[in-house]
Amino acid sequence: MPTSEEMKAAMRRYAELLNAGDLEGVLALYADDGTLEDPVGSETRSGKAEIRAFYEQAIASGAQMRIIGAQRGSAGNAASMALEVEVGAPGAPKMLVGAIETMHFNAAGKVVAMRAYWGPEDMTLSSA
Amino acid sequence: MPTSEEMKAAMRRYAELLNAGDLEGVLALYADDGTLEDPVGSETRSGKAEIRAFYEQAIASGAQMRIIGAQRGSAGNAASMALEVEVGAPGAPKMLVGAIETMHFNAAGKVVAMRAYWGPEDMTLSSA
Repeated sequence: MPTSEEMKAAMRRYAELLNAGDLEGVLALYADDGTLEDPVGSETRSGKAEIRAFYEQAIASGAQMRIIGAQRGSAGNAASMALEVEVGAPGAPKMLVGAIETMHFNAAGKVVAMRAYWGPEDMTLSSA
Repeated sequence: MPTSEEMKAAMRRYAELLNAGDLEGVLALYADDGTLEDPVGSETRSGKAEIRAFYEQAIASGAQMRIIGAQRGSAGNAASMALEVEVGAPGAPKMLVGAIETMHFNAAGKVVAMRAYWGPEDMTLSSA
């Protein structure tokens, strides 16, 4: 069972890998039967193939993730963080998405469920 | 189906009611079959009687909640927020718990599932 610090470190690593466009690195954080719901309320992606397709698109969009404030653990196999994600093709106006993500982990420390809470009203034009 | 703004408003109201020690007000935000997992990984409380017992204890502990940063919606019936909760009996040292909470709502706008992500390492002695 991963400790809270291990889960928080995995979530920081997740942001680093995504920002570096390291698709295989991001996928390696997930369990084979992992799921992804981003945003919450949209269709849940299940398994590596569907999760790969999601992150291919995210990386292609130039997504850059920044953790905002403190990360939070739990009394179990889960942790969470608030973040901002800037997305937009080079030269195009960029959108800033404010989100809160939760990740639940298995005993091996792999992500079994990621959920990203954000809605259309949490998107703004980035001033960057 | 509640809008993101309605869900965020309900979560702000939740903090106000808890801070005011309004047990019935807090309970009225929950669906009859609502559940509460605080912290995530602890036993899930189900239904109004178990949820009442939880908040009786929270209010008795003098819990004071402060929302930190922006709240986040979703593409569905859920929203989330980061917060700090100060707990401690009058005159005793107070603890500050940093947490992220998610709430899922039913079509009537009542909370069907509340989860609070925080671990022992997210508690600090309050300087207040």
